[in-house]
Amino acid sequence: MSSHSTRPTVSVVGATGYAGSELVALLARHGAVRLGPLYSGPGGAHVPFSRLHRSLAGQEGPDAEPLDIDDLLEAGPDAVFLATPNEVSAELAPLLLDWAPELKIIDLSGAFRLAHADDYPAWYGFPHPRPELLGEAVYGLPEWFREAVPGARLVANPGCYPTSVLLALKPVVDLLDASQPVVCDSKSGTSGAGRRGDVAWSFSELSGNVRAYGAGTHRHEPEMRQHLSLPNGAPFVFVPHLMPTVRGILSTVHVAFERATTPDELARRYAEAYAASPLVDVRPAGTLPDLNEVVGTPRAAIGFATLDGGRRAVLVSVIDNLLKGAASQAVQNFNLLFTLPETEGLT
Amino acid sequence: MSSHSTRPTVSVVGATGYAGSELVALLARHGAVRLGPLYSGPGGAHVPFSRLHRSLAGQEGPDAEPLDIDDLLEAGPDAVFLATPNEVSAELAPLLLDWAPELKIIDLSGAFRLAHADDYPAWYGFPHPRPELLGEAVYGLPEWFREAVPGARLVANPGCYPTSVLLALKPVVDLLDASQPVVCDSKSGTSGAGRRGDVAWSFSELSGNVRAYGAGTHRHEPEMRQHLSLPNGAPFVFVPHLMPTVRGILSTVHVAFERATTPDELARRYAEAYAASPLVDVRPAGTLPDLNEVVGTPRAAIGFATLDGGRRAVLVSVIDNLLKGAASQAVQNFNLLFTLPETEGLT
Amino acid sequence: MSSHSTRPTVSVVGATGYAGSELVALLARHGAVRLGPLYSGPGGAHVPFSRLHRSLAGQEGPDAEPLDIDDLLEAGPDAVFLATPNEVSAELAPLLLDWAPELKIIDLSGAFRLAHADDYPAWYGFPHPRPELLGEAVYGLPEWFREAVPGARLVANPGCYPTSVLLALKPVVDLLDASQPVVCDSKSGTSGAGRRGDVAWSFSELSGNVRAYGAGTHRHEPEMRQHLSLPNGAPFVFVPHLMPTVRGILSTVHVAFERATTPDELARRYAEAYAASPLVDVRPAGTLPDLNEVVGTPRAAIGFATLDGGRRAVLVSVIDNLLKGAASQAVQNFNLLFTLPETEGLT
Amino acid sequence: MSSHSTRPTVSVVGATGYAGSELVALLARHGAVRLGPLYSGPGGAHVPFSRLHRSLAGQEGPDAEPLDIDDLLEAGPDAVFLATPNEVSAELAPLLLDWAPELKIIDLSGAFRLAHADDYPAWYGFPHPRPELLGEAVYGLPEWFREAVPGARLVANPGCYPTSVLLALKPVVDLLDASQPVVCDSKSGTSGAGRRGDVAWSFSELSGNVRAYGAGTHRHEPEMRQHLSLPNGAPFVFVPHLMPTVRGILSTVHVAFERATTPDELARRYAEAYAASPLVDVRPAGTLPDLNEVVGTPRAAIGFATLDGGRRAVLVSVIDNLLKGAASQAVQNFNLLFTLPETEGLT
Repeated sequence: MSSHSTRPTVSVVGATGYAGSELVALLARHGAVRLGPLYSGPGGAHVPFSRLHRSLAGQEGPDAEPLDIDDLLEAGPDAVFLATPNEVSAELAPLLLDWAPELKIIDLSGAFRLAHADDYPAWYGFPHPRPELLGEAVYGLPEWFREAVPGARLVANPGCYPTSVLLALKPVVDLLDASQPVVCDSKSGTSGAGRRGDVAWSFSELSGNVRAYGAGTHRHEPEMRQHLSLPNGAPFVFVPHLMPTVRGILSTVHVAFERATTPDELARRYAEAYAASPLVDVRPAGTLPDLNEVVGTPRAAIGFATLDGGRRAVLVSVIDNLLKGAASQAVQNFNLLFTLPETEGLT
Repeated sequence: MSSHSTRPTVSVVGATGYAGSELVALLARHGAVRLGPLYSGPGGAHVPFSRLHRSLAGQEGPDAEPLDIDDLLEAGPDAVFLATPNEVSAELAPLLLDWAPELKIIDLSGAFRLAHADDYPAWYGFPHPRPELLGEAVYGLPEWFREAVPGARLVANPGCYPTSVLLALKPVVDLLDASQPVVCDSKSGTSGAGRRGDVAWSFSELSGNVRAYGAGTHRHEPEMRQHLSLPNGAPFVFVPHLMPTVRGILSTVHVAFERATTPDELARRYAEAYAASPLVDVRPAGTLPDLNEVVGTPRAAIGFATLDGGRRAVLVSVIDNLLKGAASQAVQNFNLLFTLPETEGLT
Repeated sequence: MSSHSTRPTVSVVGATGYAGSELVALLARHGAVRLGPLYSGPGGAHVPFSRLHRSLAGQEGPDAEPLDIDDLLEAGPDAVFLATPNEVSAELAPLLLDWAPELKIIDLSGAFRLAHADDYPAWYGFPHPRPELLGEAVYGLPEWFREAVPGARLVANPGCYPTSVLLALKPVVDLLDASQPVVCDSKSGTSGAGRRGDVAWSFSELSGNVRAYGAGTHRHEPEMRQHLSLPNGAPFVFVPHLMPTVRGILSTVHVAFERATTPDELARRYAEAYAASPLVDVRPAGTLPDLNEVVGTPRAAIGFATLDGGRRAVLVSVIDNLLKGAASQAVQNFNLLFTLPETEGLT
Repeated sequence: MSSHSTRPTVSVVGATGYAGSELVALLARHGAVRLGPLYSGPGGAHVPFSRLHRSLAGQEGPDAEPLDIDDLLEAGPDAVFLATPNEVSAELAPLLLDWAPELKIIDLSGAFRLAHADDYPAWYGFPHPRPELLGEAVYGLPEWFREAVPGARLVANPGCYPTSVLLALKPVVDLLDASQPVVCDSKSGTSGAGRRGDVAWSFSELSGNVRAYGAGTHRHEPEMRQHLSLPNGAPFVFVPHLMPTVRGILSTVHVAFERATTPDELARRYAEAYAASPLVDVRPAGTLPDLNEVVGTPRAAIGFATLDGGRRAVLVSVIDNLLKGAASQAVQNFNLLFTLPETEGLT
């Protein structure tokens, strides 16, 4: 395994998916990274490096090969990114850590996001194979857990919806009126579903269409509840929607406060909360960001408007679901793990 | 003025806008209507009949002419549709009723939707010129006010957002927990803004984009509050969004109930509420309608999912903003005014 | 079998595809038709009538059932529309005609569009099972073959691309310079491919994308060559493109003339050629139609611009691929077969 | 003026338009550039640096100010990019060169693309103010004129359509059959028109729409004819189209050859022609590139298919109109002018 004093070597499993290929594109131009072997997942395809992402055309680098764990371990990377399905990550991360205990793993799936193994059968449809790792995994939302990430072996990169919702809520969570619901109404582009090849995801069916789905049943919901530390039974509503665009999430979060606030107070809270967060932009009070302001970037933008004399507010946050909601956030976590500047390779 | 025993003659002012031209297209194939003069609005353009709407290509009928009130009065239509800006309708409807007191007017603008003249300066930006007509106007949401419409002289055709929200809420409004907010998170296509010629509405700016706007300030909000008869100060939140599609509104309404409900109970309530409403489709419990199911049709579709053991629910309603949210709803009202079957000319 | 003096009974096989469901929607409101049994194709799904097309919501009619030929024959319709895959139509049409020789069949596939059985293996990938019917089938482009259709038993409804290209060329085909190529550069929406459930047709892949495909190999090419009666070897180029929209085809046809023409001469030719064609709109010289002018309508619109002093021209034609390119054209042919006005049920 | 041995200082006029802001985004991350003053054009707006382009959010740099020529000259940049309207560039470039004869100017407009001043009134609508500079200006298509650019003072950055068409044609231009037309059927996204604020460019009008325009009259046509060196009167047809996407051009070029070619021969020609061009990708014979393969990148991709036994071919080239069709090509030219690697700052 190469020394950390030189550029760490990284490997990606799941390099051919939407999030995985964005990740490879970021890592390929990350000045402090040595690109190790890339894998397309178990039983996956061989894809030449220059075809992994349109920004890699004409460039040289490792092709993506079907996953071969022996090969991966032998290559001895310093860090492995898992952009694999939940169940694959749940098996793969423990296996890799068993063999290479000093490895750093950044998992982009939901396999290590929930604290309690009991929640996996209900929300993810499988019993968790290694519950003890759930306690060890650090939830990699840098803006909330910047201190905890560097010491982790296993980082659970947040879901795209939770990233957008939690970033919007962080600065006001202690102000929330516990008797009133937090309503998260999120709108996502289609790439969040990955490469989907069924009629329901075809252009002919989704063009011009809008769809609400998974009300109360989306697996990102327990992840949000857990990190909001809402009292058990506190009203929390999450309804995701699919919109006729490929990239981006706009979350509209409707909240009530225990007491009247002012736009200025909220503006101060947001400014303070994200003063040390170079990838979160706070809009002036009353200004709500558009989705297009962040698509293609590693940034989140957040705005708010107060209602009912400051007793309520609408919080709007926007991210690129494949970047701040997946690949670039994974790179943020990588940077924290290897004590690099948080935005290295991202701006 | 022609006798009501024969086909009533109708006239449209504002026949060249998005809603107005949809209205002309509907009226042109309405078997019980005689199409009278069409106007493009004060100072508007001359537009040949066959160019008013793509479905009218190759067909014959009256061209749209710049509005000439004398000409309109002389033509003596039985009904006039006003698809004009708020201020134009506010001036025009009283003027027409002064001269032709037996005329039926269906106004597609917001000029007569609010009960209190006091609300006009704040929400619409102008003092109402004829407050006494606000008391006389009937709010033309047929599914709520089917009894009141037939006797009206002046029908205020509801806004597109209110139509979608009120239809979703009607069957459960008496169940609502007054201490909890009704959160209406609505998503609209771009045609709701009419023919807009500024950069912010250009294809290059809106493609792939999503935007929240007008939180707490949209002029459709008082219209909804008024017809929900919520207690003063009861929490009601409305946040409209613009989506990258041309037509349709999907409203997601987040509600809490005073007591636990069951999916069956809600299903019964919706079924009963709309049993006599031929243009509202109720989906089975837990099934949420897509926008594309209604675009291009005069119908609304409504679905719901219960949350928190039946103490909360998510209501989703979809309409075509230019049809059920404007033109076809105006025809529904016309049919009621002239004791025709409610769906005449619409299916 | 019902008498032709009353409303003919029609049946549709393939009623659940994009073109088939448009066809059912048209037939359901066609005043001179009795809707007989609907079938989803061999081994297809059961789909309730009101779910076949969004415009049928809330309406009553026959559900689509998996194809049962005995059932179909027993129902004894006067006409059967086949909106089935090429190979299915090639088998089904002969079988139906064997059993019910007076039946009228309108086939929306390519199974009977080519005159020579020899062309089927190369262009369609299967040997034609009943070559003798190729000679009997009439090519159902009403604007070119209005006289021949009424006497046919079997109408081969044209392909969507050929419809757009042939309509553009008809009025000038005798003017063409045989030494110069006819270049047909066609742009289609995604619905032309039918309900496609693979990644390449997903919204995420096609949004914002444009793709040229099938240059020289598209099976609509021999159909166009055949009906243009170009000399063997005369240069004819057809390149279809896929565009990020669902419906419509815009064909740009680049031609050269044997002698200089004038805009006026071409305008006269187009006017004359389509004087008796109620569903073709000719634009003034130099005016090219937009796709949106015809989407959702049964009409074609054609424009042209002269170049090189009248020695060349650009012809642009637009149609809705599912209507004039499939379903509404099938209804036009049906109307001709049953001596109804050509636009019956279409305007 | 700073020495060329250090990083050259560059200035941008027109930094707030679509192409100009892409250019600023590229220059801001170009390692060999010092960013000098940015201007929004004569009478333009003040725009903070971090708002010029979404990728600049959170970054520091010079704001865009309304153009002040004295200020620009005083800053003494080594190079100035003009992303200004044709008439503004035509006035501005000579003025700057008069005062700073050693300045390098890269003009993204059409003001210096045509060789003959006589062509300006007809194609551009104004008499050229400084015809003598037309002879001096070098046409900045690096793949054709890589040798000529470095010595230029004034580079005329090619139009987006000509870039796509000329790159497709270069390797085969000497094979063309002079008696047969070169038909260039180009499809562009909406951003090519710049920030347009009229109804015809609104989302509601362009969504789902396709439009052919400017047949024989587009001002990019003489630019293409000139650089193809076609004999006078040789048939050349260019028809641009507008498609419902924001970015990118796909040009389909239909050609005939003097003699039969083979796919292999063409493949060799393309490979040789672009062997030294790091930003042009050639696809294998018979493989046509999709638009999405290059959107967001500085690259062109080209494919071809032979027809008629090799006597004809279809050439397809794709570029991002704002990058290879404008901003990144301008940076390529800048790199050549300052003897930097051609792809510096672009990959």
